[in-house]
Amino acid sequence: MRVALYQYAPRFGEVARNLDQVEAALLGAGADADLWILPELFSTGYNFADRDEARSLAEEVEGETWDRVRKWAQRLDCAIAYGFAERDRDVLYNSGAIVDRSGTRLHYRKLHLFDRERLFFEAGNRKLEVIEIAGARCGMMICFDWRFPETARSLGFLGADLIVHPSNLVLPWCPDAMITRALENNVYVATVDRWGIEDRAGQKLRFIGRSQVISPAGARLAALGEAEDGWIVVDIDPAVARQKQVNSNNHLYRDRRPDFYVDGPVDG
Amino acid sequence: MRVALYQYAPRFGEVARNLDQVEAALLGAGADADLWILPELFSTGYNFADRDEARSLAEEVEGETWDRVRKWAQRLDCAIAYGFAERDRDVLYNSGAIVDRSGTRLHYRKLHLFDRERLFFEAGNRKLEVIEIAGARCGMMICFDWRFPETARSLGFLGADLIVHPSNLVLPWCPDAMITRALENNVYVATVDRWGIEDRAGQKLRFIGRSQVISPAGARLAALGEAEDGWIVVDIDPAVARQKQVNSNNHLYRDRRPDFYVDGPVDG
Repeated sequence: MRVALYQYAPRFGEVARNLDQVEAALLGAGADADLWILPELFSTGYNFADRDEARSLAEEVEGETWDRVRKWAQRLDCAIAYGFAERDRDVLYNSGAIVDRSGTRLHYRKLHLFDRERLFFEAGNRKLEVIEIAGARCGMMICFDWRFPETARSLGFLGADLIVHPSNLVLPWCPDAMITRALENNVYVATVDRWGIEDRAGQKLRFIGRSQVISPAGARLAALGEAEDGWIVVDIDPAVARQKQVNSNNHLYRDRRPDFYVDGPVDG
Repeated sequence: MRVALYQYAPRFGEVARNLDQVEAALLGAGADADLWILPELFSTGYNFADRDEARSLAEEVEGETWDRVRKWAQRLDCAIAYGFAERDRDVLYNSGAIVDRSGTRLHYRKLHLFDRERLFFEAGNRKLEVIEIAGARCGMMICFDWRFPETARSLGFLGADLIVHPSNLVLPWCPDAMITRALENNVYVATVDRWGIEDRAGQKLRFIGRSQVISPAGARLAALGEAEDGWIVVDIDPAVARQKQVNSNNHLYRDRRPDFYVDGPVDG
Protein backbone atom coordinates (compact mmCIF):
# COMPACT_ATOMS: atom_id res chain seq x y z
CA MET A 1 0.00 0.00 0.00
CA ARG A 2 1.47 3.33 -1.03
CA VAL A 3 0.81 6.51 0.92
CA ALA A 4 1.72 10.03 -0.20
CA LEU A 5 1.79 13.18 1.96
CA TYR A 6 1.44 16.73 0.70
CA GLN A 7 2.74 19.63 2.82
CA TYR A 8 2.30 23.27 1.89
CA ALA A 9 1.45 26.70 3.35
CA PRO A 10 -2.24 27.45 2.76
CA ARG A 11 -3.12 31.16 2.59
CA PHE A 12 -5.75 32.00 5.17
CA GLY A 13 -9.24 32.22 3.72
CA GLU A 14 -8.09 31.88 0.08
CA VAL A 15 -9.90 28.62 -0.46
CA ALA A 16 -9.98 28.66 -4.28
CA ARG A 17 -6.27 29.46 -4.51
CA ASN A 18 -5.40 26.79 -1.96
CA LEU A 19 -7.45 24.15 -3.74
CA ASP A 20 -5.78 25.06 -7.03
CA GLN A 21 -2.32 24.65 -5.52
CA VAL A 22 -3.15 21.27 -4.00
CA GLU A 23 -4.79 20.08 -7.20
CA ALA A 24 -1.74 20.99 -9.27
CA ALA A 25 0.54 19.21 -6.81
CA LEU A 26 -1.45 16.00 -6.55
CA LEU A 27 -2.29 15.67 -10.22
CA GLY A 28 1.25 16.55 -11.23
CA ALA A 29 3.13 14.34 -8.78
CA GLY A 30 2.83 10.99 -10.54
CA ALA A 31 3.04 9.39 -7.09
CA ASP A 32 0.81 6.43 -7.93
CA ALA A 33 -0.41 6.49 -4.32
CA ASP A 34 -3.28 4.46 -2.89
CA LEU A 35 -3.83 7.19 -0.30
CA TRP A 36 -2.93 10.87 -0.38
CA ILE A 37 -2.98 12.71 2.94
CA LEU A 38 -3.38 16.48 3.29
CA PRO A 39 -3.07 18.70 6.41
CA GLU A 40 -5.73 19.64 8.97
CA LEU A 41 -8.03 22.46 7.77
CA PHE A 42 -6.15 22.17 4.50
CA SER A 43 -8.18 24.51 2.33
CA THR A 44 -9.21 27.29 4.74
CA GLY A 45 -6.23 28.01 6.96
CA TYR A 46 -6.27 27.69 10.73
CA ASN A 47 -6.19 30.90 12.71
CA PHE A 48 -9.80 32.09 12.67
CA ALA A 49 -10.48 35.49 14.23
CA ASP A 50 -13.78 34.39 15.73
CA ARG A 51 -16.60 31.90 15.39
CA ASP A 52 -18.40 33.89 12.67
CA GLU A 53 -15.32 33.80 10.48
CA ALA A 54 -14.94 30.06 11.09
CA ARG A 55 -18.58 29.55 10.20
CA SER A 56 -18.23 31.54 7.00
CA LEU A 57 -15.42 29.20 5.86
CA ALA A 58 -16.95 25.96 7.13
CA GLU A 59 -18.79 23.52 4.88
CA GLU A 60 -20.98 20.48 5.26
CA VAL A 61 -19.10 17.18 5.03
CA GLU A 62 -20.07 16.66 1.42
CA GLY A 63 -19.77 20.30 0.43
CA GLU A 64 -17.81 22.04 -2.32
CA THR A 65 -14.37 21.10 -0.99
CA TRP A 66 -15.44 17.47 -0.70
CA ASP A 67 -16.69 17.63 -4.27
CA ARG A 68 -13.36 18.94 -5.51
CA VAL A 69 -11.35 16.39 -3.51
CA ARG A 70 -13.52 13.57 -4.79
CA LYS A 71 -12.78 14.61 -8.36
CA TRP A 72 -9.05 14.35 -7.61
CA ALA A 73 -9.62 10.92 -6.09
CA GLN A 74 -11.43 9.85 -9.25
CA ARG A 75 -8.70 11.23 -11.51
CA LEU A 76 -5.94 9.54 -9.47
CA ASP A 77 -7.95 6.42 -8.66
CA CYS A 78 -6.96 6.68 -5.01
CA ALA A 79 -8.30 7.68 -1.61
CA ILE A 80 -7.62 11.17 -0.20
CA ALA A 81 -7.58 12.08 3.50
CA TYR A 82 -7.88 15.71 4.57
CA GLY A 83 -8.93 18.02 7.37
CA PHE A 84 -11.67 20.64 6.99
CA ALA A 85 -13.88 23.04 8.96
CA GLU A 86 -17.24 21.28 9.20
CA ARG A 87 -20.62 22.92 9.65
CA ASP A 88 -23.45 20.64 10.74
CA ARG A 89 -26.57 22.82 11.01
CA ASP A 90 -25.39 25.39 13.54
CA VAL A 91 -22.47 23.46 15.00
CA LEU A 92 -18.85 23.60 13.81
CA TYR A 93 -16.30 20.79 14.10
CA ASN A 94 -12.62 20.45 13.28
CA SER A 95 -13.12 17.43 11.05
CA GLY A 96 -11.42 15.04 8.72
CA ALA A 97 -12.61 12.81 5.91
CA ILE A 98 -11.29 10.09 3.68
CA VAL A 99 -12.85 10.17 0.23
CA ASP A 100 -12.49 7.92 -2.80
CA ARG A 101 -14.38 7.40 -6.06
CA SER A 102 -17.20 5.68 -4.14
CA GLY A 103 -17.69 8.73 -1.89
CA THR A 104 -17.05 9.31 1.82
CA ARG A 105 -15.17 6.38 3.37
CA LEU A 106 -14.49 7.89 6.79
CA HIS A 107 -15.68 10.97 8.66
CA TYR A 108 -13.97 11.99 11.90
CA ARG A 109 -14.40 14.95 14.24
CA LYS A 110 -11.33 15.92 16.30
CA LEU A 111 -11.86 14.67 19.87
CA HIS A 112 -9.27 16.90 21.57
CA LEU A 113 -9.41 20.53 20.48
CA PHE A 114 -6.27 22.62 20.92
CA ASP A 115 -6.32 25.97 22.71
CA ARG A 116 -8.35 28.61 20.77
CA GLU A 117 -10.02 25.99 18.58
CA ARG A 118 -12.46 25.70 21.47
CA LEU A 119 -13.73 29.18 20.66
CA PHE A 120 -14.91 28.04 17.24
CA PHE A 121 -15.45 24.30 17.28
CA GLU A 122 -17.27 21.71 19.35
CA ALA A 123 -15.27 18.69 20.47
CA GLY A 124 -15.88 15.64 18.26
CA ASN A 125 -18.79 13.29 18.83
CA ARG A 126 -18.08 10.52 16.34
CA LYS A 127 -16.43 7.18 17.06
CA LEU A 128 -12.84 6.50 16.16
CA GLU A 129 -12.92 4.21 13.18
CA VAL A 130 -10.72 2.09 10.93
CA ILE A 131 -11.31 1.42 7.22
CA GLU A 132 -9.40 -0.61 4.66
CA ILE A 133 -7.57 1.02 1.78
CA ALA A 134 -5.59 -1.15 -0.66
CA GLY A 135 -5.22 -3.84 2.00
CA ALA A 136 -4.11 -1.50 4.81
CA ARG A 137 -6.40 -0.64 7.71
CA CYS A 138 -6.39 3.12 8.22
CA GLY A 139 -7.67 5.19 11.14
CA MET A 140 -7.63 8.95 11.53
CA MET A 141 -6.77 11.31 14.33
CA ILE A 142 -6.14 15.06 14.01
CA CYS A 143 -3.20 17.10 15.33
CA PHE A 144 -3.49 17.63 19.15
CA ASP A 145 -5.14 14.21 19.49
CA TRP A 146 -1.48 13.02 19.61
CA ARG A 147 -1.09 14.41 23.14
CA PHE A 148 -3.65 11.96 24.54
CA PRO A 149 -2.19 8.44 24.32
CA GLU A 150 -5.68 6.93 24.31
CA THR A 151 -6.35 8.21 20.77
CA ALA A 152 -3.57 6.33 18.96
CA ARG A 153 -4.04 3.43 21.38
CA SER A 154 -7.73 3.19 20.45
CA LEU A 155 -6.93 3.20 16.74
CA GLY A 156 -4.36 0.47 17.35
CA PHE A 157 -6.89 -1.57 19.30
CA LEU A 158 -9.35 -1.16 16.42
CA GLY A 159 -6.78 -2.79 14.15
CA ALA A 160 -5.20 0.20 12.40
CA ASP A 161 -2.06 -0.55 10.40
CA LEU A 162 -1.63 3.13 9.59
CA ILE A 163 -2.64 6.19 11.61
CA VAL A 164 -3.52 9.03 9.25
CA HIS A 165 -2.75 12.26 11.11
CA PRO A 166 -3.63 15.57 9.41
CA SER A 167 -2.11 18.36 11.52
CA ASN A 168 -1.43 22.06 11.90
CA LEU A 169 1.40 21.88 14.45
CA VAL A 170 2.58 24.95 16.32
CA LEU A 171 4.46 23.18 19.17
CA PRO A 172 7.74 21.31 18.62
CA TRP A 173 7.09 17.92 20.21
CA CYS A 174 4.77 15.99 17.93
CA PRO A 175 7.25 14.68 15.34
CA ASP A 176 9.24 12.82 18.00
CA ALA A 177 6.18 11.88 20.05
CA MET A 178 4.79 10.05 17.02
CA ILE A 179 7.77 7.69 17.23
CA THR A 180 6.48 6.73 20.68
CA ARG A 181 2.94 6.36 19.32
CA ALA A 182 4.23 4.07 16.56
CA LEU A 183 6.32 1.96 18.96
CA GLU A 184 3.69 1.52 21.64
CA ASN A 185 1.12 0.30 19.10
CA ASN A 186 3.40 -1.14 16.42
CA VAL A 187 1.68 0.90 13.71
CA TYR A 188 2.72 3.23 10.91
CA VAL A 189 1.98 6.90 11.57
CA ALA A 190 1.73 9.52 8.82
CA THR A 191 1.62 13.07 10.21
CA VAL A 192 0.86 15.62 7.52
CA ASP A 193 1.49 19.16 8.65
CA ARG A 194 1.44 22.59 7.03
CA TRP A 195 4.08 25.31 7.27
CA GLY A 196 4.02 29.11 7.21
CA ILE A 197 2.84 31.88 9.52
CA GLU A 198 -0.67 33.13 10.24
CA ASP A 199 -0.61 36.46 12.04
CA ARG A 200 -4.25 37.35 12.65
CA ALA A 201 -6.50 38.52 15.46
CA GLY A 202 -3.52 39.26 17.69
CA GLN A 203 -2.31 35.65 17.43
CA LYS A 204 0.85 34.97 15.49
CA LEU A 205 1.17 31.25 14.82
CA ARG A 206 4.12 29.59 13.11
CA PHE A 207 3.46 26.08 11.83
CA ILE A 208 6.39 23.71 12.00
CA GLY A 209 6.08 21.59 8.84
CA ARG A 210 8.13 18.38 9.30
CA SER A 211 5.49 16.06 7.85
CA GLN A 212 6.69 12.49 8.21
CA VAL A 213 5.98 8.77 8.09
CA ILE A 214 7.12 6.63 11.05
CA SER A 215 7.40 2.83 10.83
CA PRO A 216 6.07 0.42 13.49
CA ALA A 217 9.71 -0.03 14.58
CA GLY A 218 10.03 3.71 15.24
CA ALA A 219 12.05 4.61 12.14
CA ARG A 220 11.44 7.93 10.38
CA LEU A 221 10.94 6.59 6.86
CA ALA A 222 10.61 9.99 5.17
CA ALA A 223 10.15 13.60 6.26
CA LEU A 224 9.76 17.10 4.88
CA GLY A 225 11.44 20.25 6.20
CA GLU A 226 10.21 23.05 8.44
CA ALA A 227 9.37 25.42 5.62
CA GLU A 228 8.85 23.75 2.30
CA ASP A 229 6.09 22.78 -0.05
CA GLY A 230 6.55 19.19 -1.08
CA TRP A 231 5.41 15.63 -1.09
CA ILE A 232 6.82 12.33 0.03
CA VAL A 233 5.74 8.82 -0.77
CA VAL A 234 6.20 5.68 1.35
CA ASP A 235 5.24 2.05 0.83
CA ILE A 236 3.43 0.56 3.82
CA ASP A 237 3.48 -3.18 4.59
CA PRO A 238 0.38 -3.98 6.67
CA ALA A 239 1.86 -7.34 7.70
CA VAL A 240 4.61 -5.49 9.59
CA ALA A 241 2.05 -3.49 11.56
CA ARG A 242 0.06 -6.60 12.40
CA GLN A 243 3.01 -8.40 13.99
CA LYS A 244 2.45 -7.27 17.57
CA GLN A 245 4.87 -9.96 18.75
CA VAL A 246 7.89 -7.63 18.88
CA ASN A 247 10.41 -10.24 20.07
CA SER A 248 10.24 -13.95 21.01
CA ASN A 249 8.75 -13.12 24.40
CA ASN A 250 6.77 -9.88 24.03
CA HIS A 251 3.41 -9.22 22.42
CA LEU A 252 2.46 -5.56 22.68
CA TYR A 253 -1.21 -6.25 23.26
CA ARG A 254 -1.23 -9.61 25.05
CA ASP A 255 1.38 -8.41 27.55
CA ARG A 256 -0.89 -5.61 28.75
CA ARG A 257 -1.97 -5.80 32.41
CA PRO A 258 -5.39 -4.13 32.40
CA ASP A 259 -6.18 -5.34 35.93
CA PHE A 260 -3.46 -3.02 37.18
CA TYR A 261 -4.23 0.03 35.05
CA VAL A 262 -6.00 3.06 36.49
CA ASP A 263 -8.82 4.31 34.24
CA GLY A 264 -8.89 8.00 35.05
CA PRO A 265 -7.72 10.67 37.49
CA VAL A 266 -8.04 9.70 41.13
CA ASP A 267 -8.84 12.62 43.40
CA GLY A 268 -6.95 13.26 46.63
CA MET B 1 12.34 18.38 46.31
CA ARG B 2 15.78 17.28 45.15
CA VAL B 3 16.31 14.04 43.24
CA ALA B 4 19.67 12.46 42.45
CA LEU B 5 20.38 9.66 39.95
CA TYR B 6 23.33 7.30 40.04
CA GLN B 7 24.39 5.48 36.86
CA TYR B 8 27.16 2.89 36.76
CA ALA B 9 28.09 -0.51 35.26
CA PRO B 10 27.39 -3.25 37.81
CA ARG B 11 29.52 -6.39 37.41
CA PHE B 12 27.31 -9.42 36.99
CA GLY B 13 26.90 -11.42 40.18
CA GLU B 14 29.48 -9.39 42.15
CA VAL B 15 26.97 -8.08 44.64
CA ALA B 16 29.38 -7.06 47.40
CA ARG B 17 31.62 -5.18 44.98
CA ASN B 18 28.63 -3.45 43.35
CA LEU B 19 27.19 -2.41 46.71
CA ASP B 20 30.59 -1.02 47.74
CA GLN B 21 30.81 1.06 44.58
CA VAL B 22 27.31 2.48 45.00
CA GLU B 23 27.89 3.17 48.68
CA ALA B 24 31.08 5.10 47.95
CA ALA B 25 29.33 7.12 45.25
CA LEU B 26 26.24 8.02 47.26
CA LEU B 27 28.01 8.77 50.52
CA GLY B 28 30.71 10.74 48.73
CA ALA B 29 28.52 12.80 46.44
CA GLY B 30 27.34 15.48 48.85
CA ALA B 31 24.22 15.76 46.72
CA ASP B 32 21.90 16.66 49.59
CA ALA B 33 19.12 14.78 47.79
CA ASP B 34 15.69 13.94 49.17
CA LEU B 35 15.57 10.91 46.89
CA TRP B 36 18.38 8.92 45.28
CA ILE B 37 17.43 6.63 42.40
CA LEU B 38 19.48 3.60 41.31
CA PRO B 39 19.05 1.34 38.24
CA GLU B 40 16.92 -1.77 37.85
CA LEU B 41 18.55 -4.92 39.36
CA PHE B 42 21.22 -2.55 40.56
CA SER B 43 23.27 -4.90 42.73
CA THR B 44 23.08 -8.22 40.85
CA GLY B 45 23.39 -7.43 37.17
CA TYR B 46 20.77 -8.33 34.59
CA ASN B 47 21.63 -11.11 32.20
CA PHE B 48 20.91 -14.28 34.18
CA ALA B 49 21.81 -17.56 32.50
CA ASP B 50 18.77 -19.36 33.84
CA ARG B 51 16.19 -19.33 36.60
CA ASP B 52 18.44 -21.11 39.09
CA GLU B 53 21.07 -18.44 38.74
CA ALA B 54 18.44 -15.72 39.15
CA ARG B 55 17.13 -17.46 42.25
CA SER B 56 20.61 -17.71 43.74
CA LEU B 57 21.00 -13.91 43.44
CA ALA B 58 17.44 -12.97 44.44
CA GLU B 59 16.54 -11.79 47.94
CA GLU B 60 13.41 -11.18 49.94
CA VAL B 61 12.20 -7.58 49.89
CA GLU B 62 13.75 -6.78 53.22
CA GLY B 63 16.87 -8.86 52.68
CA GLU B 64 20.57 -8.03 52.88
CA THR B 65 20.55 -5.53 50.04
CA TRP B 66 17.57 -3.75 51.56
CA ASP B 67 19.44 -3.64 54.87
CA ARG B 68 22.46 -2.04 53.25
CA VAL B 69 20.39 0.48 51.28
CA ARG B 70 18.48 1.43 54.39
CA LYS B 71 21.73 2.21 56.17
CA TRP B 72 22.65 4.59 53.33
CA ALA B 73 19.23 6.20 53.62
CA GLN B 74 19.79 6.70 57.34
CA ARG B 75 23.27 8.13 56.80
CA LEU B 76 22.05 10.51 54.10
CA ASP B 77 18.65 11.20 55.69
CA CYS B 78 16.92 10.59 52.37
CA ALA B 79 14.84 8.04 50.51
CA ILE B 80 16.47 5.62 48.05
CA ALA B 81 14.73 3.92 45.12
CA TYR B 82 16.28 0.87 43.48
CA GLY B 83 15.54 -2.25 41.49
CA PHE B 84 16.32 -5.76 42.74
CA ALA B 85 15.69 -9.45 42.04
CA GLU B 86 13.00 -10.45 44.51
CA ARG B 87 12.33 -13.93 45.85
CA ASP B 88 8.97 -14.46 47.54
CA ARG B 89 8.91 -18.10 48.69
CA ASP B 90 9.46 -19.86 45.40
CA VAL B 91 8.51 -17.05 43.05
CA LEU B 92 10.87 -14.47 41.56
CA TYR B 93 9.94 -10.91 40.55
CA ASN B 94 11.80 -8.05 38.90
CA SER B 95 11.05 -5.60 41.69
CA GLY B 96 11.70 -2.15 42.97
CA ALA B 97 11.56 -0.53 46.37
CA ILE B 98 11.77 2.89 47.94
CA VAL B 99 13.36 2.82 51.37
CA ASP B 100 13.99 5.50 53.96
CA ARG B 101 14.92 5.58 57.64
CA SER B 102 11.41 4.43 58.55
CA GLY B 103 11.72 1.32 56.37
CA THR B 104 10.03 0.26 53.14
CA ARG B 105 7.93 3.09 51.69
CA LEU B 106 7.03 1.47 48.37
CA HIS B 107 7.33 -2.02 46.90
CA TYR B 108 6.65 -2.56 43.21
CA ARG B 109 6.90 -5.61 40.94
CA LYS B 110 7.49 -4.90 37.24
CA LEU B 111 4.21 -5.38 35.39
CA HIS B 112 5.65 -5.77 31.89
CA LEU B 113 8.63 -8.12 31.70
CA PHE B 114 11.03 -7.68 28.77
CA ASP B 115 12.02 -10.59 26.56
CA ARG B 116 14.10 -13.23 28.46
CA GLU B 117 13.09 -11.82 31.85
CA ARG B 118 10.04 -14.03 31.43
CA LEU B 119 12.28 -17.07 31.80
CA PHE B 120 13.23 -16.02 35.33
CA PHE B 121 10.55 -13.76 36.73
CA GLU B 122 6.80 -13.72 37.14
CA ALA B 123 4.97 -10.61 35.95
CA GLY B 124 4.16 -8.20 38.78
CA ASN B 125 1.04 -8.60 40.92
CA ARG B 126 1.14 -5.47 43.06
CA LYS B 127 -0.79 -2.26 42.47
CA LEU B 128 0.86 0.82 41.03
CA GLU B 129 1.23 3.24 43.88
CA VAL B 130 2.23 6.81 44.70
CA ILE B 131 3.91 7.97 47.92
CA GLU B 132 5.04 11.38 49.13
CA ILE B 133 8.70 12.23 49.55
CA ALA B 134 9.67 15.74 50.66
CA GLY B 135 6.41 17.13 49.30
CA ALA B 136 6.58 15.39 45.92
CA ARG B 137 4.33 12.46 45.04
CA CYS B 138 6.45 9.67 43.58
CA GLY B 139 5.38 6.54 41.71
CA MET B 140 7.59 3.79 40.31
CA MET B 141 7.69 1.88 37.08
CA ILE B 142 10.59 -0.27 35.82
CA CYS B 143 12.31 -0.18 32.41
CA PHE B 144 10.10 -1.85 29.73
CA ASP B 145 6.97 -0.60 31.51
CA TRP B 146 7.65 2.56 29.44
CA ARG B 147 6.49 0.82 26.26
CA PHE B 148 2.92 0.49 27.62
CA PRO B 149 1.42 3.97 27.87
CA GLU B 150 -1.02 2.78 30.52
CA THR B 151 1.77 2.47 33.10
CA ALA B 152 2.87 6.10 33.18
CA ARG B 153 -0.74 7.16 32.59
CA SER B 154 -1.86 5.22 35.66
CA LEU B 155 0.85 6.80 37.81
CA GLY B 156 -0.22 10.21 36.52
CA PHE B 157 -3.85 9.45 37.34
CA LEU B 158 -2.79 8.41 40.84
CA GLY B 159 -1.31 11.87 41.30
CA ALA B 160 2.40 11.29 40.67
CA ASP B 161 4.51 14.43 40.34
CA LEU B 162 7.58 12.34 39.57
CA ILE B 163 7.85 8.94 37.89
CA VAL B 164 10.81 7.05 39.31
CA HIS B 165 12.04 4.74 36.57
CA PRO B 166 14.89 2.33 37.38
CA SER B 167 15.99 0.75 34.10
CA ASN B 168 18.44 -1.55 32.31
CA LEU B 169 17.89 -0.33 28.75
CA VAL B 170 19.17 -2.28 25.76
CA LEU B 171 17.02 -0.65 23.04
CA PRO B 172 17.54 2.96 21.89
CA TRP B 173 14.07 4.47 22.16
CA CYS B 174 13.29 5.00 25.82
CA PRO B 175 15.14 8.28 26.48
CA ASP B 176 13.08 10.11 23.83
CA ALA B 177 9.88 8.20 24.60
CA MET B 178 10.03 9.47 28.17
CA ILE B 179 9.64 13.00 26.81
CA THR B 180 6.28 11.85 25.45
CA ARG B 181 5.40 10.21 28.77
CA ALA B 182 6.23 13.46 30.59
CA LEU B 183 4.22 15.60 28.16
CA GLU B 184 1.13 13.45 28.05
CA ASN B 185 0.86 13.37 31.85
CA ASN B 186 2.60 16.64 32.74
CA VAL B 187 4.92 14.88 35.17
CA TYR B 188 8.64 14.72 35.85
CA VAL B 189 10.28 11.45 34.77
CA ALA B 190 13.62 10.23 36.15
CA THR B 191 14.98 7.26 34.19
CA VAL B 192 18.03 5.74 35.86
CA ASP B 193 19.85 3.32 33.61
CA ARG B 194 23.09 1.34 33.82
CA TRP B 195 25.81 1.05 31.18
CA GLY B 196 28.27 -1.67 30.16
CA ILE B 197 28.08 -5.04 28.44
CA GLU B 198 26.96 -8.39 29.80
CA ASP B 199 27.99 -11.24 27.51
CA ARG B 200 26.65 -14.39 29.13
CA ALA B 201 24.68 -17.49 28.21
CA GLY B 202 24.98 -16.73 24.51
CA GLN B 203 23.32 -13.31 24.97
CA LYS B 204 25.43 -10.21 24.53
CA LEU B 205 23.61 -7.20 25.90
CA ARG B 206 24.86 -3.64 25.72
CA PHE B 207 23.14 -1.21 28.09
CA ILE B 208 22.72 2.32 26.80
CA GLY B 209 23.25 4.52 29.86
CA ARG B 210 21.71 7.96 29.15
CA SER B 211 20.04 8.32 32.55
CA GLN B 212 18.00 11.51 32.56
CA VAL B 213 15.38 13.71 34.17
CA ILE B 214 12.61 15.11 31.96
CA SER B 215 10.39 18.03 33.02
CA PRO B 216 6.59 18.11 32.68
CA ALA B 217 7.13 20.46 29.72
CA GLY B 218 9.26 17.86 27.96
CA ALA B 219 12.68 19.41 28.63
CA ARG B 220 15.68 17.17 29.30
CA LEU B 221 16.85 18.81 32.54
CA ALA B 222 19.97 16.69 32.97
CA ALA B 223 21.43 13.53 31.44
CA LEU B 224 24.40 11.20 31.65
CA GLY B 225 26.31 9.68 28.73
CA GLU B 226 26.17 6.26 27.10
CA ALA B 227 29.16 4.86 28.95
CA GLU B 228 29.96 6.66 32.15
CA ASP B 229 29.67 6.25 35.87
CA GLY B 230 28.21 9.37 37.37
CA TRP B 231 25.42 11.14 39.12
CA ILE B 232 23.17 14.07 38.39
CA VAL B 233 20.95 16.08 40.65
CA VAL B 234 17.76 17.98 39.76
CA ASP B 235 15.34 20.08 41.79
CA ILE B 236 11.72 19.09 41.23
CA ASP B 237 8.84 21.54 41.73
CA PRO B 238 5.69 19.50 42.46
CA ALA B 239 3.48 22.53 41.72
CA VAL B 240 4.64 22.46 38.10
CA ALA B 241 3.61 18.82 37.73
CA ARG B 242 0.21 19.49 39.31
CA GLN B 243 -0.70 22.22 36.80
CA LYS B 244 -2.49 20.02 34.27
CA GLN B 245 -3.95 23.15 32.66
CA VAL B 246 -1.26 23.41 29.98
CA ASN B 247 -2.65 26.54 28.28
CA SER B 248 -5.71 28.77 28.78
CA ASN B 249 -7.96 26.25 27.07
CA ASN B 250 -6.46 22.79 27.65
CA HIS B 251 -6.42 20.63 30.76
CA LEU B 252 -4.63 17.34 30.11
CA TYR B 253 -7.00 15.28 32.23
CA ARG B 254 -10.32 17.13 31.94
CA ASP B 255 -10.02 17.24 28.15
CA ARG B 256 -9.92 13.46 27.91
CA ARG B 257 -12.83 11.85 26.04
CA PRO B 258 -13.20 8.44 27.74
CA ASP B 259 -16.56 7.78 26.06
CA PHE B 260 -14.69 7.54 22.77
CA TYR B 261 -11.68 5.49 23.89
CA VAL B 262 -11.40 1.80 23.11
CA ASP B 263 -10.36 -0.24 26.16
CA GLY B 264 -8.50 -3.11 24.57
CA PRO B 265 -7.84 -4.96 21.31
CA VAL B 266 -10.91 -5.55 19.18
CA ASP B 267 -10.80 -8.79 17.22
CA GLY B 268 -11.61 -8.97 13.51
